[in-house]
Amino acid sequence: MRIMTAPAKRPGRRPGSADTRGAILNAARAEFASRGYEKTTVRAVARAADVDAALVHHYFGAKEKLFLAALDFPVDPATVVELAAGDPAGVGERLARYVVALWDLPEARERLLAVVRTVSSNEDMAAMVRGFAKPRLVAPLAARIGGANAEARVEMALAQIIGLAVARYVIRVEPIASLGTEELVGLLGGALQRLLGS
Amino acid sequence: MRIMTAPAKRPGRRPGSADTRGAILNAARAEFASRGYEKTTVRAVARAADVDAALVHHYFGAKEKLFLAALDFPVDPATVVELAAGDPAGVGERLARYVVALWDLPEARERLLAVVRTVSSNEDMAAMVRGFAKPRLVAPLAARIGGANAEARVEMALAQIIGLAVARYVIRVEPIASLGTEELVGLLGGALQRLLGS
Repeated sequence: MRIMTAPAKRPGRRPGSADTRGAILNAARAEFASRGYEKTTVRAVARAADVDAALVHHYFGAKEKLFLAALDFPVDPATVVELAAGDPAGVGERLARYVVALWDLPEARERLLAVVRTVSSNEDMAAMVRGFAKPRLVAPLAARIGGANAEARVEMALAQIIGLAVARYVIRVEPIASLGTEELVGLLGGALQRLLGS
Repeated sequence: MRIMTAPAKRPGRRPGSADTRGAILNAARAEFASRGYEKTTVRAVARAADVDAALVHHYFGAKEKLFLAALDFPVDPATVVELAAGDPAGVGERLARYVVALWDLPEARERLLAVVRTVSSNEDMAAMVRGFAKPRLVAPLAARIGGANAEARVEMALAQIIGLAVARYVIRVEPIASLGTEELVGLLGGALQRLLGS
């Protein structure tokens, strides 16, 4: 997808600018949506945005960072996977504490909920998330926790987290909506521990 | 909200017709959204739709049935609450079996997902669900299962169910998307049992 603005003034590849960043993100969304995470290359995104691949790397770093920026997603999967390492008896609470702390930041929460809204009504976004979540989040988390059905249990845990965010912040049903941080960490941590603990 | 169509031909209250049913549903959606489930009366919906209250009862029955029709929601909360009665050791599996059987019906699944989509992007719909879910589903289910934090645990269970539906049918992430009925009942039933079992 080329962004055609004032072509007469732009004979070659566009130089870096505030606008270029947006053009790269638009191209990335289109590529990730149509090809999926695995088959999309930074080079193809750069081509679609009509910029140099080096410029994409300069703005966003590696493909994973570009994907997260395109999704405007405030979670670093590597951090989540790291949290699953360490004492298996505490994995539920560690993950719950991380998630609830994120929800307590209004901007991060808004971005998470925007992803939930868009994914549930936009097949391209669903495809982006599907293509990314499996190799970058579900598979490494499942490898950390081990046991039977590890990938399915990880996905149940992610479903629990997302469903709880919707119940608390979108539907705002009581008592979940008004639970304090520690109570919420306790409840979510317990549920995640039972799904992920070995 | 009055639906003004050909007023010259309709001097009094509209008679029953296919169109009247839609007018009642529109009025019900507006009333439930603005006043919430508890404060909405069948009489007020009838007034807003410019029909007799008896006609609303004739088409939809009691307020709860009218609400479920307005939401186009294929689940009967009374059935869910009944499933929570009986042997506490089997509550998770009974609920999981009911939910998964519902998801297996393409029409019911589509209507459920439509509600999820709309609720996540429409505050009026979120308000409708919030006002209904607490008194008609969460509170009676919590009363059945008992124990500490029963309402919050019920809401965690509902969040798990909704999150799983989104993962399986909207995002379609593997392996959850392709799990057979029995495997799915086993996984979901286990998670629900741990949240709801006493």
